[in-house]
Amino acid sequence: MGNCCERAGNFFGPQKNTNVRVSLPAVCFVWQIAMIILFGVFIRYDDESDVRLWIQHKLDHNITSDIENDFYFRYPSFQDVHVMIFVGFGFLMTFLKRYSFGGVGFNFLIAAFGLQWALLMQGWFHSLDLTTGKISIGVESLINADFCCAGSLIAFGALLGKVSPVQLLVVTLFGVTLFAVEEYIILSLLHCRDAGGSMVIHAFGGYYGLAISWVLYRPNLHLSKRLNGSVYHSDVFAMIGTLFLWMFWPSFNSAITDHGDGQHRAAINTYLALASSVLTTVAISSMSQKKGKLDMVHIQNATLAGGVAMGTAAEFMITPYGSLIVGFCTGIISTFGYLFVTPFLERVLKLQDTCGVHNLHAVPGMLGGFIGAIVAAAATEEVYSREGLNIPVCCLFKGFILRFPIWGDPADDNCYDDEVYWEVPEDEETLPPVLEYNNHMIHKHQDISESNFSVEQS
Amino acid sequence: MGNCCERAGNFFGPQKNTNVRVSLPAVCFVWQIAMIILFGVFIRYDDESDVRLWIQHKLDHNITSDIENDFYFRYPSFQDVHVMIFVGFGFLMTFLKRYSFGGVGFNFLIAAFGLQWALLMQGWFHSLDLTTGKISIGVESLINADFCCAGSLIAFGALLGKVSPVQLLVVTLFGVTLFAVEEYIILSLLHCRDAGGSMVIHAFGGYYGLAISWVLYRPNLHLSKRLNGSVYHSDVFAMIGTLFLWMFWPSFNSAITDHGDGQHRAAINTYLALASSVLTTVAISSMSQKKGKLDMVHIQNATLAGGVAMGTAAEFMITPYGSLIVGFCTGIISTFGYLFVTPFLERVLKLQDTCGVHNLHAVPGMLGGFIGAIVAAAATEEVYSREGLNIPVCCLFKGFILRFPIWGDPADDNCYDDEVYWEVPEDEETLPPVLEYNNHMIHKHQDISESNFSVEQS
Amino acid sequence: MGNCCERAGNFFGPQKNTNVRVSLPAVCFVWQIAMIILFGVFIRYDDESDVRLWIQHKLDHNITSDIENDFYFRYPSFQDVHVMIFVGFGFLMTFLKRYSFGGVGFNFLIAAFGLQWALLMQGWFHSLDLTTGKISIGVESLINADFCCAGSLIAFGALLGKVSPVQLLVVTLFGVTLFAVEEYIILSLLHCRDAGGSMVIHAFGGYYGLAISWVLYRPNLHLSKRLNGSVYHSDVFAMIGTLFLWMFWPSFNSAITDHGDGQHRAAINTYLALASSVLTTVAISSMSQKKGKLDMVHIQNATLAGGVAMGTAAEFMITPYGSLIVGFCTGIISTFGYLFVTPFLERVLKLQDTCGVHNLHAVPGMLGGFIGAIVAAAATEEVYSREGLNIPVCCLFKGFILRFPIWGDPADDNCYDDEVYWEVPEDEETLPPVLEYNNHMIHKHQDISESNFSVEQS
Repeated sequence: MGNCCERAGNFFGPQKNTNVRVSLPAVCFVWQIAMIILFGVFIRYDDESDVRLWIQHKLDHNITSDIENDFYFRYPSFQDVHVMIFVGFGFLMTFLKRYSFGGVGFNFLIAAFGLQWALLMQGWFHSLDLTTGKISIGVESLINADFCCAGSLIAFGALLGKVSPVQLLVVTLFGVTLFAVEEYIILSLLHCRDAGGSMVIHAFGGYYGLAISWVLYRPNLHLSKRLNGSVYHSDVFAMIGTLFLWMFWPSFNSAITDHGDGQHRAAINTYLALASSVLTTVAISSMSQKKGKLDMVHIQNATLAGGVAMGTAAEFMITPYGSLIVGFCTGIISTFGYLFVTPFLERVLKLQDTCGVHNLHAVPGMLGGFIGAIVAAAATEEVYSREGLNIPVCCLFKGFILRFPIWGDPADDNCYDDEVYWEVPEDEETLPPVLEYNNHMIHKHQDISESNFSVEQS
Repeated sequence: MGNCCERAGNFFGPQKNTNVRVSLPAVCFVWQIAMIILFGVFIRYDDESDVRLWIQHKLDHNITSDIENDFYFRYPSFQDVHVMIFVGFGFLMTFLKRYSFGGVGFNFLIAAFGLQWALLMQGWFHSLDLTTGKISIGVESLINADFCCAGSLIAFGALLGKVSPVQLLVVTLFGVTLFAVEEYIILSLLHCRDAGGSMVIHAFGGYYGLAISWVLYRPNLHLSKRLNGSVYHSDVFAMIGTLFLWMFWPSFNSAITDHGDGQHRAAINTYLALASSVLTTVAISSMSQKKGKLDMVHIQNATLAGGVAMGTAAEFMITPYGSLIVGFCTGIISTFGYLFVTPFLERVLKLQDTCGVHNLHAVPGMLGGFIGAIVAAAATEEVYSREGLNIPVCCLFKGFILRFPIWGDPADDNCYDDEVYWEVPEDEETLPPVLEYNNHMIHKHQDISESNFSVEQS
Repeated sequence: MGNCCERAGNFFGPQKNTNVRVSLPAVCFVWQIAMIILFGVFIRYDDESDVRLWIQHKLDHNITSDIENDFYFRYPSFQDVHVMIFVGFGFLMTFLKRYSFGGVGFNFLIAAFGLQWALLMQGWFHSLDLTTGKISIGVESLINADFCCAGSLIAFGALLGKVSPVQLLVVTLFGVTLFAVEEYIILSLLHCRDAGGSMVIHAFGGYYGLAISWVLYRPNLHLSKRLNGSVYHSDVFAMIGTLFLWMFWPSFNSAITDHGDGQHRAAINTYLALASSVLTTVAISSMSQKKGKLDMVHIQNATLAGGVAMGTAAEFMITPYGSLIVGFCTGIISTFGYLFVTPFLERVLKLQDTCGVHNLHAVPGMLGGFIGAIVAAAATEEVYSREGLNIPVCCLFKGFILRFPIWGDPADDNCYDDEVYWEVPEDEETLPPVLEYNNHMIHKHQDISESNFSVEQS
């Protein structure tokens, strides 16, 4: 065991420079200042969040009560989505034994930057007032911005541990841009409905991440194998992410659907699909192991597939048992993905997908699009194939750019390690009273193993 | 210390077969398929979540705005309750040092199955349209389904670490069924009100769990004693559960009360009762220890007793100071329960209650029923005693079934151990740079203690 | 390393008596009983939570639907604020390696007591009906009570690890009292608006904590230095706190603003300011370290500065880009505070500020007041300086009282240690199967290092 833990990797390949002291602050400052300028030029409050416009809006629409402000229809759902983006995605990615800071911290950075850029991009495409040249934002815009970040965070799942924070910001910048474009094509040009984003968010995010991961393929990634796994408590942390995603998915899929029965039905359908996929995930996970033990990777991920797959269809009259069937099938498919497809992708297609976003987002998202198409009896399949066409081209170009040696990404033997980009505290000290006892013990045996104590403490 | 950790238990009693590779997937699939069929036959959207029915409903009731859809009255409360069920109960049960996966993971499985069965059972008893033979569901049904699961999750608290996931699914199937029956008796036949479920949920769940635990008594459970306790970080995880339960209890008790002042008052009363029980729990916990130190078991559990006890009375005009008095008393009673009653139950009545659900749910739930009865000046005591009669009979029968050797439950020396049903990762590796240092140290002393390194790593 | 861990401190200074077995229960009981009596005398349900008054209110105001009850306007925001107070502040303070129980547990105790006293104090100052002598409470009162606790919890951040729970209850009693007074002066006498509490909550709480910390200065605190830091997983726990504070801050700043556009706009502005401060915090944190690594202290704290600084201005028409600028500047200022001001304060002004509340609350809170003043074009600067005058006088007196040797506070070498006030479990046992293996190994080498095993296990 000692050998496999040695930093042998240092002797392979050129040592990478992971110092981001100049590039990371530079990118953060430049982009934040750009955001401020662009917001100053383009972004305004909408009818429901501007003092005067809301008064006018109430007069125009004969509204007597402030409770009819869209804020009260959507703010609780927005907050649930917000929790999914920051705690859900963030903690789901703390499962690696030494990359929990990176998982939750870079997720935080990506989302905080991405939502600003998303407000602009989505604004230009969807709500630009051509007379005034301004974008109006309200609570629905905030939800959409969070959704847009989700695409890039899913992509982050495929890259987890293998890229630098600067690369992640670039991935987010491109990802949000691409997202706004494909969303515009799917929703506005092809007139599809995809309120919970099966295609627009999950299939897009999944394939976007996989495409970048493919371009950034690391042939010697096995050198970091010792760190590509969980420890007991990191798996418990990841369950925080799983559960907040799972619980709030009904809000995710109902957040921007029609007021009234639309939001109501979307929440019910998603709730049922999710419950169903938990049972089939547990079943397949248990079947796949010799003694029937459950695997945390499946429980943390595949249980969510029902929510992904209901993204498009949740607002439709898919019926309660229809929702259960969707969850039933996607729970099985997603768990099989973790068992067979991820190893296959890595071995054959050279795709290194840390979190298995292919099984949780890409495939269930595609399925969700088909389900929505069937339910709506509309030709969304066409849409899907078109999407499948657009993305790779951009990603390839983008991935090529990301290979330049300026991004401070870690070396192959240095992946999945918080040491690279974070100040990591010394490991746990034991309890003082116990320590005292230890000291006593050590003194007794000092002649035999003087240096043993520091070894054990570390 | 070495001795107490040896797997000595292996030599006692017959070795149990904990392989659930056939039974667990079989049960999951059979039950999920049954759910799909039954949902197909019985379950439909209600007036407020069906497209056409909602339009008709608005016309019939002269409603002009979608904001009057029950979704906007109850969805935020539903989401809070949902968090309590999955994160609250789930993380509260991560306190055991090596059963955190089981605590949060089996909780997830139970609730995901239970809520589907609850929608059916509660539907048949409470909202079956006798003309069409259909059950209509909406957001209030989802809340009630979550409530119904709470009963089985409380029972799980008494069984934590001692049963297999297959047994838990059976416990849930029976538990939800029994719940729907007793709820029907209490609410519909005896016309009691119990919106927050002091009797219906907490007293029921507590006694249901205790009855099963009594039948499944393990005389040699002391063989697993080394694992029946917490470590530092597992206690911090459990506080996540405690706090989410504590914070959202006002939503739990107000989720299905009357619109307007009813929900408003229930939230205020519960908020006050909970605050009060924190102070008396801290007081008794500190008094009970020689040096006045606080015990995490009490803080994690007894602080919640005020919420349990307000379940019935929260919606009544109990007055703010009345709520404080309820919290004051139940905080004391519950902490005393952990100090004296749990050990007594185990020693004298052969009741092994891992989470102490007797002190947190059973007793405060009973008290809550009495308080509600006093406040409402209605004869709910009669109800309560009747409930006390019904449950044990069923539980005895059920417990008998659960003793069959087909369920894959762990042996006495194997309880509280995730190894049995979960793939558990290797224990924590230390930081690579430190490891390098260690290796160096070890090489220096290799002649003395060559195998020491692997010992320390494990 | 062995030496620095010895309890050498025991030989310095007089040994302190940290036994709180009498004082803590006594204070809890006395105060909780006082609360019950005072609530009985003063507190009643308000128009919207009392059965009869709500019916009357609907008639008086020509309200036809229960959805117009203030509960539906404010309860979702209340629950978000509630999560910030208990999970947000609580988990943010779990970052210390051996004071996680104290961080989250004492936070719980302080808030549960403080909110009761706040309902009374704020009631007397703001909503006492002079005819009946009664205080009416509703959901807005609960939010204000939570806000009021926030002041004392911020102060706790400066004292973390250095005071006893009894002292904390006294700090809370005075803190809430002082809060109600300064709030009355600022809001009612000077007619300022401060809905999110930049001045009223954050600047107050920060300076209150610093003043007490200054009076309680411990010259030999370096004796506890080994415990004044984090370990890997305690930093991940703290991120739970950070993220829940960050995500729900829009609810914090909009919870008590005007219905309709007011709440809507406050949420948007806060959302934007927070996003912006994440990027500048990351930038400065990376710049400050030789290799550009990020520091968890900054990410956990300074990212929140944008929310603090928007407290006053969030409800105004500050414009979206204005919000981004506020977040941009405060992220930088707060991170610089952690880098340079905290060490300076400790060295020169003898201010020991465990959580750096000066940088997260005091300074951004002050700035928030100025920003609000500029935006509102009102003379709030005057207010601020007046506040700066009032607090220290009271704090000095209070700090003097807290130095009496009756409070059970820890000795200088005993700070930041849960052992003092909590029953702490034995440290983590390793996995049983591995243990078995260990035992084997140890037997093999028993002749050389017999006692090694217990050393490693501890």
